[in-house]
Amino acid sequence: MTAYTIDFEPLGRREQCQDNETLLDCARRCGIGVSSLCGGKGICHRCKIQLLSGTVSGPTSIERQKFAPKELQKGYRLACQTYPTSDGKLLVPPESMSSPQRAQVEGLELSVRLDPPVRTYRLEIPTPSLTDQRGDAERVLETLNQQVHCRTIDINVLRNLSPQLRSWNWQAQASVRNKEVIALSPWPSRQLGLAIDLGTTKIAGYLVDLSNGHTLAAKGIMNPQISYGEDVVARISHVMGSPAEGTRMRKLAVGALDKMARELCNIIGAKLEEIVEVVIVGNTAMHHLLLGLPVKQLAYSPFLPAVSEALDIRARDIGFHIAPGAYVHLLPNIAGFVGADHVAMLLATEVRQADGLSIALDIGTNTEVCLASDGKMNSVSCASGPAFEGGHIKDGMRAARGAIEHFRMENGEVQLQTVDGAPPVGICGSGIFDILAQLYLNRVLNERGRMMDNHPRVRTHEGQREFVIVNEEERNGRPAITITQQDVRELQLAKAAIQTGIQVLLEAENRSEEDIKQVIIAGAFGTYIDVSSAVVIGMLPSLPLDRFRQVGNAAGTGAKLALLSCGKRTEAQAIARRVGYVELARAPRFMQLFVEATYIRSHTDKGG
Amino acid sequence: MTAYTIDFEPLGRREQCQDNETLLDCARRCGIGVSSLCGGKGICHRCKIQLLSGTVSGPTSIERQKFAPKELQKGYRLACQTYPTSDGKLLVPPESMSSPQRAQVEGLELSVRLDPPVRTYRLEIPTPSLTDQRGDAERVLETLNQQVHCRTIDINVLRNLSPQLRSWNWQAQASVRNKEVIALSPWPSRQLGLAIDLGTTKIAGYLVDLSNGHTLAAKGIMNPQISYGEDVVARISHVMGSPAEGTRMRKLAVGALDKMARELCNIIGAKLEEIVEVVIVGNTAMHHLLLGLPVKQLAYSPFLPAVSEALDIRARDIGFHIAPGAYVHLLPNIAGFVGADHVAMLLATEVRQADGLSIALDIGTNTEVCLASDGKMNSVSCASGPAFEGGHIKDGMRAARGAIEHFRMENGEVQLQTVDGAPPVGICGSGIFDILAQLYLNRVLNERGRMMDNHPRVRTHEGQREFVIVNEEERNGRPAITITQQDVRELQLAKAAIQTGIQVLLEAENRSEEDIKQVIIAGAFGTYIDVSSAVVIGMLPSLPLDRFRQVGNAAGTGAKLALLSCGKRTEAQAIARRVGYVELARAPRFMQLFVEATYIRSHTDKGG
Repeated sequence: MTAYTIDFEPLGRREQCQDNETLLDCARRCGIGVSSLCGGKGICHRCKIQLLSGTVSGPTSIERQKFAPKELQKGYRLACQTYPTSDGKLLVPPESMSSPQRAQVEGLELSVRLDPPVRTYRLEIPTPSLTDQRGDAERVLETLNQQVHCRTIDINVLRNLSPQLRSWNWQAQASVRNKEVIALSPWPSRQLGLAIDLGTTKIAGYLVDLSNGHTLAAKGIMNPQISYGEDVVARISHVMGSPAEGTRMRKLAVGALDKMARELCNIIGAKLEEIVEVVIVGNTAMHHLLLGLPVKQLAYSPFLPAVSEALDIRARDIGFHIAPGAYVHLLPNIAGFVGADHVAMLLATEVRQADGLSIALDIGTNTEVCLASDGKMNSVSCASGPAFEGGHIKDGMRAARGAIEHFRMENGEVQLQTVDGAPPVGICGSGIFDILAQLYLNRVLNERGRMMDNHPRVRTHEGQREFVIVNEEERNGRPAITITQQDVRELQLAKAAIQTGIQVLLEAENRSEEDIKQVIIAGAFGTYIDVSSAVVIGMLPSLPLDRFRQVGNAAGTGAKLALLSCGKRTEAQAIARRVGYVELARAPRFMQLFVEATYIRSHTDKGG
Repeated sequence: MTAYTIDFEPLGRREQCQDNETLLDCARRCGIGVSSLCGGKGICHRCKIQLLSGTVSGPTSIERQKFAPKELQKGYRLACQTYPTSDGKLLVPPESMSSPQRAQVEGLELSVRLDPPVRTYRLEIPTPSLTDQRGDAERVLETLNQQVHCRTIDINVLRNLSPQLRSWNWQAQASVRNKEVIALSPWPSRQLGLAIDLGTTKIAGYLVDLSNGHTLAAKGIMNPQISYGEDVVARISHVMGSPAEGTRMRKLAVGALDKMARELCNIIGAKLEEIVEVVIVGNTAMHHLLLGLPVKQLAYSPFLPAVSEALDIRARDIGFHIAPGAYVHLLPNIAGFVGADHVAMLLATEVRQADGLSIALDIGTNTEVCLASDGKMNSVSCASGPAFEGGHIKDGMRAARGAIEHFRMENGEVQLQTVDGAPPVGICGSGIFDILAQLYLNRVLNERGRMMDNHPRVRTHEGQREFVIVNEEERNGRPAITITQQDVRELQLAKAAIQTGIQVLLEAENRSEEDIKQVIIAGAFGTYIDVSSAVVIGMLPSLPLDRFRQVGNAAGTGAKLALLSCGKRTEAQAIARRVGYVELARAPRFMQLFVEATYIRSHTDKGG
């Protein structure tokens, strides 16, 4: 028996694989989350990988059936069918990864001309003498002005300037933003930027090298405000009661940013003071709660933001301590329920520049949908609720170890995939989608979402019908994992909200589904889902699968773009001004469309 | 017996005066500090007043001797010789006031075109509706931009904007500074400015109406940093030890500003948030300690300030809480020991524009002297020490109730004037000056400052010669008030420092005392002193008394000018750049001049 060294990219994991072990088995043994529903039987075709270097066993008949000769030539294989015959390197494409790992590496590629708002300059400062008695600050400014027009030095920089210049022997690096020195460091020093996607549930952070645009570290943490309510409305009403609660909520968010910044810096061994610029995107409520802006007016018609325009706020003014004079840039909001995260997503996906009719949507507790057509954009916000994130679902959970992330019924048999291949403990969002679609396709659910009793796994428990996914026996006596009739109802409402949003936008433009050239699905959750399941249940338009693009956390990518480029900030402003906001509940046929959308059926079935 | 109603201006006091009571007696009875050394005998001529309206008893022969007919015609009289014969109004000129009251009202007249950095605009903001869903901030900015170009709203303003606009029914007043809204208030609201002279010993504050330039309230408090040392060097070395001490020192200063602002607001019933702009002047060390700037480099040659240029710092960034987005403007420093207070003094006295050779000086623990000639200016800083403020003098005290503020010897008799005419308890600065001059003129002190034993009031006490000003008997058994030989030595050093400064500046320009066209004496202490005493002891040049101007707290006046006018800020910058700094200790003949200056003698005696 021989062992080979296999590199799993883009995760960067190097593992030993036995010659009598499939690549899938090796991945599972090592905790690399490669997808598989059928457990390695070659049926589900989920474990697609690409061989980048080295040699492996020849393609099996299953693979010859699945892949075109051209694909095989490019090294595409099923991990469950392939044994290594040498050391090698392989790529696990995002769609073959389990949810958590997929979320880690997913994202649009950045392609942007570097034009950050903070620039650095090397200073060789004349030393003072009895004949040159200029103040230290003037000495710095006059040296700097030989390179760039700069007027002032932030007070926090001034507070350390004199001893620093002396200890650095009058050699320094100035970080200049808008004609002001916002940081001073020894020459040469790194200039880091921090991009934050401040979500209602999760906060994603990216530490970026401003000199080359490289993402040096990325991380996701929970939004600690969640203890005050899962959705924005709960948090707004909590804060409305008292200013003290507003302060507490603000401090929770700032504390999370601080923690995020520290942890990202730890990963690469950087100091907080090396972060000279931050961009934050979030929905309007998260934006307001972070800044300590009033939110009451967000809660009542006409649901106005306190501020829509982009803001540049001194980091210390929101209690965030990085480089001494650093600023936080907040992208503009569009409306009370369409925030800067939507703008960032539109910026990153470049949907405005797309040819033909496009839809871009970010699925979450609130799902914002934008319909773009030749530069014209309209957006709606759909209250899709927490069901897709596992909330309000009996056995719902987040995409953590043991979560059922994919589900299929084959000849009445149930096939599962769990995160990390661990024993199932609950169902996460992408699993919920699959279950709904599969139960409908297998006629366990009818169009109206009613659960039939024609399947051996359907039972009545505590007065309610439910479909057993994993029974008590399979769980060694622990309670079964099931989908209840009630869960199905929740999911119907959630998917109907999104489906209605899309329909309303199409009707406003007098267009139909068939005209849509591309559907861009953004957001961590949108990354995990099986698009075909979403099409089956009618949430997404019934279009050829190659018209869908799952782009990961595009809001985070948009934040990164704005971090690296002032031009992108201007573009974001233009997007925010350009996007028309459509109030879903006030659309002409809203109620009718919504009721229709609660039906589970593919759009192609319509009228059928 | 009839009583008349008399208005004492500029104090604005209205009192009842009996027809058999002199105006001096009335003033003393009512606690109005009108000067008098002779106790109302018509000898000292200190109680000069001017009748503005009403009638009084005719001039006495003493008054006919003192005043020219033209002066009598203008209403000049001695308060001790005059009885009211009707209701009336009289003016107590500054030189006739006792020290504390004089300090309260003294100051240069302001004459400045109003051009403050903060302007106000009335806003009538369109109310939101379902068809006008702009954010609240954009609504304000767009309304404002119809009147003035304005780009942003400070985050602290944004934090209250939405509820405020709603409670004010969308009518508001915006305070705009440098294209930013720094405060929002109901329409109409007052716009107040605060001018601060942050002295090493005392802090003077002026609350000013920015719409008309009127000073609404003024106040002086002690600088609480004094507990860490009376002079700047002591405070600098204290802070150099540890950053925590720097923070403590800074907080003391900020706490004092806060207290000052609150008390001034209380006087006129204003709110702190009505203060939309602050100007602070102080010496370089006070400036640095307030801002938390490093001071170590101030203490070592070449004694560099961390910052010389003028600064605009958000008030909250120094921990000072007034209008939400308000700024503090700090006038520029000239050098480590010639600070913004000197610049402010030069600004207020307009010495740069004066014809011919002028001297402007602000007497204090450090005395800055400027010699100006046809727009050219040079300044020195003289370490005059605390003696003139009563420090390091056995019976020295500040100008409080019972302080001997004036002193004269007439035929061997001692004449005193105390603050409020109260029984004497100590000697304040102006009294110390008079005593030194009178003892010299009466040959109790010789030129070298040695105390002779040729006077009945000279005695030896605890091994030291001293001159008894008030003996134990006169004080009902309490210890005598005396001037000791040691006190005289302290005073010689103090006056020599200033005298040397003037001489060094004159020599640098190849000019002599006789060329001086005007001597401007600024500062609270300079206001109290009897100029002729200062001339007698040689501290001030021997010139006709009409060439001296005592202008009160000119630094405070300069701060007020900068508060009211951006043009004056530009002028202050020009002054700071233009003034040459002369390092006293490095002047060619410094030691020789200093030794000569320790002699007590009028300059006219020189070489005699």
